[in-house]
Amino acid sequence: MTIKTFNNEVLRETKAHLDQLTKPIGSLGRIEELAIQLAGITGQFPPIIEKPAIVVAAADHGIVEEGVSAYPPEVTALMIENFVRGGAAINVFGKQIGAEVLVVDVGVNADISSQPIIHQKIRNGTRNFLREDAMTEEEALAAIAVGKEIANDLILKGHRLLITGEMGIGNTSASSALVACLTQEPMERVVGIGTGLKEEERQKKIAVLKEAMLNRNITAGTSPLSILAKVGGLEIATLTGVILAGAAKQTPVLIDGFISTAAALVAKKLEPAIGPYLMIAHQSAELGHEAVMNYLEVEPILQLDLRLGEGTGAALAYPIVEASSRILREMATFKDLGL
Amino acid sequence: MTIKTFNNEVLRETKAHLDQLTKPIGSLGRIEELAIQLAGITGQFPPIIEKPAIVVAAADHGIVEEGVSAYPPEVTALMIENFVRGGAAINVFGKQIGAEVLVVDVGVNADISSQPIIHQKIRNGTRNFLREDAMTEEEALAAIAVGKEIANDLILKGHRLLITGEMGIGNTSASSALVACLTQEPMERVVGIGTGLKEEERQKKIAVLKEAMLNRNITAGTSPLSILAKVGGLEIATLTGVILAGAAKQTPVLIDGFISTAAALVAKKLEPAIGPYLMIAHQSAELGHEAVMNYLEVEPILQLDLRLGEGTGAALAYPIVEASSRILREMATFKDLGL
Repeated sequence: MTIKTFNNEVLRETKAHLDQLTKPIGSLGRIEELAIQLAGITGQFPPIIEKPAIVVAAADHGIVEEGVSAYPPEVTALMIENFVRGGAAINVFGKQIGAEVLVVDVGVNADISSQPIIHQKIRNGTRNFLREDAMTEEEALAAIAVGKEIANDLILKGHRLLITGEMGIGNTSASSALVACLTQEPMERVVGIGTGLKEEERQKKIAVLKEAMLNRNITAGTSPLSILAKVGGLEIATLTGVILAGAAKQTPVLIDGFISTAAALVAKKLEPAIGPYLMIAHQSAELGHEAVMNYLEVEPILQLDLRLGEGTGAALAYPIVEASSRILREMATFKDLGL
Repeated sequence: MTIKTFNNEVLRETKAHLDQLTKPIGSLGRIEELAIQLAGITGQFPPIIEKPAIVVAAADHGIVEEGVSAYPPEVTALMIENFVRGGAAINVFGKQIGAEVLVVDVGVNADISSQPIIHQKIRNGTRNFLREDAMTEEEALAAIAVGKEIANDLILKGHRLLITGEMGIGNTSASSALVACLTQEPMERVVGIGTGLKEEERQKKIAVLKEAMLNRNITAGTSPLSILAKVGGLEIATLTGVILAGAAKQTPVLIDGFISTAAALVAKKLEPAIGPYLMIAHQSAELGHEAVMNYLEVEPILQLDLRLGEGTGAALAYPIVEASSRILREMATFKDLGL
């Protein structure tokens, strides 16, 4: 897979155009930065952003046996029913922005084969990584491949922006473990309350994850793929695949909150050239999101204290990204005004 | 004019409904806070937000004779031509959200009577408030009345959310002077670079505004209306009218950046009961905006380093506000899922 470096000529053309638009130079702040990033990602001036599609990857997590989540694991399958019925927050926000919502089962620990979603189940949830590796490397690669295939298919169908989302009770635990291993941040700084732990429950989650780290025998020499397999999640690996394929196909991927950003971190470890492509939708209320964004040197678009996942923050940020592309195509220049 | 206090029963009903939706309690953060505020403003559960309309009030400022702006005053009229032709940023963002853009001349210092906009010119720009009062109190009241009339008319036509915007070279100077007088913040903390001053030019702007304050003889006993007349702007007064009428008619008004927030500050000084109605779209890059938001005890929705005005930040924030109302109407409850 090849990820192109941004074309400097396209970046220059975009910047020059922004400075000719009927506004004080730089007065649209982040909107202008996003416009330049979109031009870089797509390699086009002006970049066209349309037909957003939301990929909601779903899977379960063996680590929930250790009592690290405020919700029981059965909620993963129940929420898939909710997605299918259109009652979840991501359905509402997806409808508002005119986006298709694709739900993908890559590892839900229940028979949901009758649901009208994409079925790519690799196994019934990860193994409990306190006791054994969450996945084999082959399973992790298969989950990444599912994400790449879905992204490539959506891009072929004309979707010009992809949004990452996920559902999986226990996936903040897997994400915190991934972030701790891949950034060397202390566990206390990357473990939050997830779906709503009390502080003492959060302390227990930290203790469980620290013990799991030791048990998994992860060292400085452990490869990113191996770390993903040892402590990650199937839906996280799938989103890593979406993020990688989007960049390879020069299609913007709007990355949601903590779990999606953990997937982006894995993507960057696998393909460092992806750095400039990363577009983080919002700063989650989940502790640890800020640490991983600092590590990736990215700035979120929104700060709305969300901690829901599903892709909700990215769907909410989409109109801002769309606006960034629109100014390049629709605003007048001072020359148009006769100046 | 009567501004209702929020109905506690409606607030309670909204909060209780949010806690039954299929998501962890509180996990939609600011979106949930906005949903409750919308219910409070409209007095309805669920609040219906639709058909946004953007009011762009335009006027000139006599203080520009003192060299306080990076752009010449002729730009005000030129930008109105740009609004009419649909080439300005607010046209692009307004179109994106399906909002009507109404441009109102309340004090442009040029004959623009042939432009297809709302003509309510009160005078050809304010007087130079370094040397004399910017307006008489009668002129300030007339400009407020224009804003109220426009807002009432839009609400009658079915617009369920109003957005404030403005155009007027020199209007950060008037806004900084208003904020300094009404909050007692030192001038250094409320004067920014406007459309793009260099630091030495900003220092000159501070010096001019400080001298103007002394000349206008504003004391602790000077009324808010008198302060508005002495150092304010016609477009600012018009937006004060829009904000007041919106609250009186229980219709949300999404307030843009520094100049619009200065208008909101005047509105709160005139009608303190308006406090809970204030909905600030974004934190502007213009120095002084943070100080006035702190004084009003309001939190912005977006932080995008914008400093353009026209209502652009509010148009960008509109989808977030719309999403806040949609979750109350469209999301499933746990009961709907059979739990």
